Amino acid sequence: MTDPMELAERVREGELRLHELEEHADPDTATAARRRLLEDETDAGLESIGEYGFPAERADPNVENMIGAAQIPMGIAGPVEINPTGGGAAAGEFHLPIATTEGALIASINRGCSTLNSAGGATARVTKSGMTRAPVFRVEDVAEAAALVEWVRENEGRLAERAETTTSHGELLEVTPYVVGDSVFLRFRYDTKDAMGMNMATIATGEACDLVEEETSASLVALSGNLCTDKKPAAVNAVEGRGRSVTADVTLPRELVEERLHTTPEAMAEINTRKNHVGSAKAGSLGFNAHVANAVAGMFLATGQDAAQVVEGSNAITTAEVREEGLYVSVSIASLEVGTVGGGTKLPTQSEALDVLGLRGGGDPPGANADALAECIAVCALAGELSLLAALGSRHLSSAHADLGR
Amino acid sequence: MTDPMELAERVREGELRLHELEEHADPDTATAARRRLLEDETDAGLESIGEYGFPAERADPNVENMIGAAQIPMGIAGPVEINPTGGGAAAGEFHLPIATTEGALIASINRGCSTLNSAGGATARVTKSGMTRAPVFRVEDVAEAAALVEWVRENEGRLAERAETTTSHGELLEVTPYVVGDSVFLRFRYDTKDAMGMNMATIATGEACDLVEEETSASLVALSGNLCTDKKPAAVNAVEGRGRSVTADVTLPRELVEERLHTTPEAMAEINTRKNHVGSAKAGSLGFNAHVANAVAGMFLATGQDAAQVVEGSNAITTAEVREEGLYVSVSIASLEVGTVGGGTKLPTQSEALDVLGLRGGGDPPGANADALAECIAVCALAGELSLLAALGSRHLSSAHADLGR
Amino acid sequence: MTDPMELAERVREGELRLHELEEHADPDTATAARRRLLEDETDAGLESIGEYGFPAERADPNVENMIGAAQIPMGIAGPVEINPTGGGAAAGEFHLPIATTEGALIASINRGCSTLNSAGGATARVTKSGMTRAPVFRVEDVAEAAALVEWVRENEGRLAERAETTTSHGELLEVTPYVVGDSVFLRFRYDTKDAMGMNMATIATGEACDLVEEETSASLVALSGNLCTDKKPAAVNAVEGRGRSVTADVTLPRELVEERLHTTPEAMAEINTRKNHVGSAKAGSLGFNAHVANAVAGMFLATGQDAAQVVEGSNAITTAEVREEGLYVSVSIASLEVGTVGGGTKLPTQSEALDVLGLRGGGDPPGANADALAECIAVCALAGELSLLAALGSRHLSSAHADLGR
Amino acid sequence: MTDPMELAERVREGELRLHELEEHADPDTATAARRRLLEDETDAGLESIGEYGFPAERADPNVENMIGAAQIPMGIAGPVEINPTGGGAAAGEFHLPIATTEGALIASINRGCSTLNSAGGATARVTKSGMTRAPVFRVEDVAEAAALVEWVRENEGRLAERAETTTSHGELLEVTPYVVGDSVFLRFRYDTKDAMGMNMATIATGEACDLVEEETSASLVALSGNLCTDKKPAAVNAVEGRGRSVTADVTLPRELVEERLHTTPEAMAEINTRKNHVGSAKAGSLGFNAHVANAVAGMFLATGQDAAQVVEGSNAITTAEVREEGLYVSVSIASLEVGTVGGGTKLPTQSEALDVLGLRGGGDPPGANADALAECIAVCALAGELSLLAALGSRHLSSAHADLGR
Repeated sequence: MTDPMELAERVREGELRLHELEEHADPDTATAARRRLLEDETDAGLESIGEYGFPAERADPNVENMIGAAQIPMGIAGPVEINPTGGGAAAGEFHLPIATTEGALIASINRGCSTLNSAGGATARVTKSGMTRAPVFRVEDVAEAAALVEWVRENEGRLAERAETTTSHGELLEVTPYVVGDSVFLRFRYDTKDAMGMNMATIATGEACDLVEEETSASLVALSGNLCTDKKPAAVNAVEGRGRSVTADVTLPRELVEERLHTTPEAMAEINTRKNHVGSAKAGSLGFNAHVANAVAGMFLATGQDAAQVVEGSNAITTAEVREEGLYVSVSIASLEVGTVGGGTKLPTQSEALDVLGLRGGGDPPGANADALAECIAVCALAGELSLLAALGSRHLSSAHADLGR
Repeated sequence: MTDPMELAERVREGELRLHELEEHADPDTATAARRRLLEDETDAGLESIGEYGFPAERADPNVENMIGAAQIPMGIAGPVEINPTGGGAAAGEFHLPIATTEGALIASINRGCSTLNSAGGATARVTKSGMTRAPVFRVEDVAEAAALVEWVRENEGRLAERAETTTSHGELLEVTPYVVGDSVFLRFRYDTKDAMGMNMATIATGEACDLVEEETSASLVALSGNLCTDKKPAAVNAVEGRGRSVTADVTLPRELVEERLHTTPEAMAEINTRKNHVGSAKAGSLGFNAHVANAVAGMFLATGQDAAQVVEGSNAITTAEVREEGLYVSVSIASLEVGTVGGGTKLPTQSEALDVLGLRGGGDPPGANADALAECIAVCALAGELSLLAALGSRHLSSAHADLGR
Repeated sequence: MTDPMELAERVREGELRLHELEEHADPDTATAARRRLLEDETDAGLESIGEYGFPAERADPNVENMIGAAQIPMGIAGPVEINPTGGGAAAGEFHLPIATTEGALIASINRGCSTLNSAGGATARVTKSGMTRAPVFRVEDVAEAAALVEWVRENEGRLAERAETTTSHGELLEVTPYVVGDSVFLRFRYDTKDAMGMNMATIATGEACDLVEEETSASLVALSGNLCTDKKPAAVNAVEGRGRSVTADVTLPRELVEERLHTTPEAMAEINTRKNHVGSAKAGSLGFNAHVANAVAGMFLATGQDAAQVVEGSNAITTAEVREEGLYVSVSIASLEVGTVGGGTKLPTQSEALDVLGLRGGGDPPGANADALAECIAVCALAGELSLLAALGSRHLSSAHADLGR
Repeated sequence: MTDPMELAERVREGELRLHELEEHADPDTATAARRRLLEDETDAGLESIGEYGFPAERADPNVENMIGAAQIPMGIAGPVEINPTGGGAAAGEFHLPIATTEGALIASINRGCSTLNSAGGATARVTKSGMTRAPVFRVEDVAEAAALVEWVRENEGRLAERAETTTSHGELLEVTPYVVGDSVFLRFRYDTKDAMGMNMATIATGEACDLVEEETSASLVALSGNLCTDKKPAAVNAVEGRGRSVTADVTLPRELVEERLHTTPEAMAEINTRKNHVGSAKAGSLGFNAHVANAVAGMFLATGQDAAQVVEGSNAITTAEVREEGLYVSVSIASLEVGTVGGGTKLPTQSEALDVLGLRGGGDPPGANADALAECIAVCALAGELSLLAALGSRHLSSAHADLGR
């Protein structure tokens, strides 16, 4: 077997290219050779990057030109009681694995979990679901565009049939056409069960596009026309959802707020209004929350989700309302794109983290695991919001007390 | 020394709480004890999570309740020539470390880098810079709000002086007031040099808020009033910037587009218009690009940036324009929040990745390393955009050819 | 009969209130009395406001506390050929009535019309249609919210039946639920034929809400929950449409652009990209056009539409693309709320303006007149965009020439 | 003197074109001739349009191809007490002229005014001011873009000097550069005193652009690059303001809410939260209010403002908060573009409406009248919001009572 230094040498001499190493050596050797080359060229030492704890071939579907792994510290929050009275996809106590580099984040979420438990646990529901792909077609003019829209409305069944030839699990739920001049966008929405589903949706849509091109005068310009919308902040996702639309909520008794959080329902509601509603409104934001993206990013990294989709996961609205019994708080994430199969979920540390949640692999019924994961992330976000609002509220209260003392 | 099993036992018996373990054992033992507890409670095996390649104490500032690390595969793209004619913060050949779980991403960026090199390299510039924090104050009414605005405009110097007492590096650049009823938001913008700067900005702003409360009738409600805006998609960042506003661009000769990318400048410009401009416009998006967030997320994870800030990093506009000499393509990221000191940058694999770029630690002059990192990420994003547009374009072209054959 | 002065006197003496005058005098006298009172109290002379050219009772459904009328100058653009090859709702030559106070606007639109005619006329189509109303309900928590969503999905037929008891024309097309914590929004979409339809939609939705409250535990909080969205700029309208989604387009031969507009297809496309696409993107805008709102406002005022709905009418995207034959230009307005019956359309000058278009009253089939009006406004907007882009382009070209001369 | 029929005949015979009639007859005759031509060609009768109550030449700066006037019913709301304790630009009792075709609107605003008076009047303040124009320049690449940004930052004084050569009143307040690839936008902001100021800003900016082109390599592409942003819904205006940023507010005693509005502070605050905050957030809106655009449109039409700028006027946030003394309500309009000189303000009915407000012409000091007009419109909007929230609240309360009875 070739050793890394030899391999590196052959690259330096121009015999091989950096991305061809796996053709001439096992993955770990190839990876080591690349580190060696980089070390020579850059003065960097790559020992830590090289200390990844799994055979490199495990990462083969996930990376190219591998040199090792980034190690992101992982901690645990909870356990937190979810859906104590049933009715959701997640049920019972969950330990929440979170990978992060932001100090104090897990401690904060952990306090939130403990507060949730004291209130009897959090409720969570997926209220809408579907992965989207929206190709863009070129037509001659608006007359052709209108005709294409008509054709799509009349042929949704055939589009579904054609799209579903490519997948044993996926199901086409709807196709919505949008016209802008001589561009027509068709937003396909699929039930992709426990998969996050981008690939499934893309392949199925590609097949459906063939039907469109066969039967109409439209020409496909791009399989993704950005009305999907993937990995960009976009109102279409915040309004209509993408992946899972999921809400978690809780009602905290007044005493809990006062004794454990050292603030009042009124103070927390006020902060939520001024910061999360009015501040976000004034900022022209699609996110009306304090730091939901932190929880989303932390659990995404831990469980092998796509880190770039944290973008859509931040389309969340937090509400806080004083009720007779205390304080109602909710977090609604419009477009949380998660899966428990495929993508990064099979990687060693990530699949272990899914095991911590008891949600690795396909659910029963299909989709149930991804739904439950969405609910867990929403509850994690709720814990984070509670904790941050309480921290602001208690500072606020003490400052209010100080004010009285002046 | 306590062993993990003993420690775990004491937690089970209620003597210790999960987050207190570091008080009774060294960090690695505490971490092992937590894994043990989780394994018992959840049927998960946590071997891989436990195989992190550094002393747990290194992660102390970044995580609580640590159980190990998430390992995200890291690969390398490039090298890519940046600012061959100088003038930017980054200069020379850069190998781009990218941590990702999305197969084909690095290969795609790598092709883009090679295209950029064939065109002589990419140019990049930071055109605006500053980390923001925007506390929200409660006032009695709009009369008081107007008075506060007036006070702020007259006392910007004193606010700077006070804010800067908390930092040896940071510099307050401006304070912009916004009024919504009886809420007044003050958006503080700082030069935080090579630090991403959220903590610095928060602490300095806290101090400045004390001055506001001492001298006016306003009461601080929350140190972050969401007009900052941190970790939420928000127009204020897309318009005014946060962290670095950075652009990378290149002009590709026509032959390069035709021979290497197997498409035409016209096809690539058309796709960019229909997908990135018109599609994003119709989606109500703040991101007018194909997949900039992928490059941002990949390099953020590799270099220890805050994963939740990928959200703002996706506020990017890609342009593509046919010129006499070929195709001009640019990527402008409005709000890229990066640092080369602090936060996750000190972690072992992350600091090695910064070494690969030659950008670990403080720059000379201060801020130069973070500027250069921003430029590298922008060029990485440009490579990704080029590659994806070209892939769509060549498919498109072949489909166009097929059309002719019909 | 009471004379205005006597009536005014009785108000001054506190016997009558300003809004009660119509109970004691005919509408014109009441109106005169109010002017008299205002003139006494404010030093204003109200002769012109008093010279309205119709019996005051004609305005009874449109105004209260009437003092007269604002007179907005009305001019005419065109005639312009619309849908010369048929297929749309509008067909033939149209004179476009425009009420405005902005000098040069009609001249500019007129030039655009003439250009359109030289290209053989403009094509226009309504590609989506439906007036919306979205009440907001309070539920106990997300479990109840999810149950309500389920109930709505299963009872859409009954909701339609109930809603349609209130209207002989309207038809409920769909109900889309949205959940945010303990608030559930139901977006009802109706076919309201030739009426703009807000009242019809509101009344029908009110009735449907009764069914919701009878059969579920939800409580109606507001009949409009702002997801409609009426008279506010909102992405939901820009994406999904409200009223009519309508596009107008044209392909201009190159010679026409060069000889009549004194610019080039390339220059116009470039301006459209930099200004309408990139500039609007950077502005965080929902309007990607030059001045569509001018055409919308002008025709809205002339034809008795709701002036506050100019807001939604500005959600428009203009595209310009160089083709072999010249320049393709389109305007797509996402949410144009128009009617030819009801509201202000019955007022004297407004109904005459509708007569100029041949579109007063109900169409055949129902909805055809409002569709045609939408197409006329879209063509008017297209003319305005063409004219402004051309003006910029010719300046630009001359400046380019000057550049060459330097 | 030529009579209209003769003139019409000459157009029919092709001797004259429609827009040339004023060259051969007085304006009223030309206008009559156009009506005659239209009547012949369209079967419309244009008597009412022809009954405009002023010499046509008065409308010369405002319209072309005039055929008469649209008559929009005008009514009056109030009087309402504004700034009873001084400190704003408006002070005293104001009758609010409103032109509208929406039945019940003025009655509703009138009720709101009466409520405001019972609470001692409303407070209003302009908190930011400035008309903007943002040309877009083409540069070679981002290196040139960065250089241009630098040049602008160093030459703001010279740009001001040059811009101000074109105006005796206007003052350049700031220039903010924005870079997107090879497009550079410069947002010029001016104090335009009592003029709405678009023309002033455009002319001054044109002159400043000459300086940019003389001294740098940038080429002007369009004098408006859409970052202004005029007549499009855009976050840049909602965040940074355009024209006047103005807030009006009031605190209503609890008894007033209960006895006069038949609801409670709590109910009104809840409705405001669910509808105006949460509903608008979910809609991806830039308007967080109930129907501010109605008040803006009504007063704009009455006082000769630009109807297309109702678009920006709808960027408003309404807040409602329960306080010990009752209910605090505010309306903050971010970008209200108003003037009391120029544009449509000189037209007969419009200038009379300004006289009703006591705000015709230039203020003392300059700008004071336009500020006061902005405050009046904000108070009008506040009255409208109060009235609508109260109506929903009282329905709501009665429905709540009904609930208890079940």
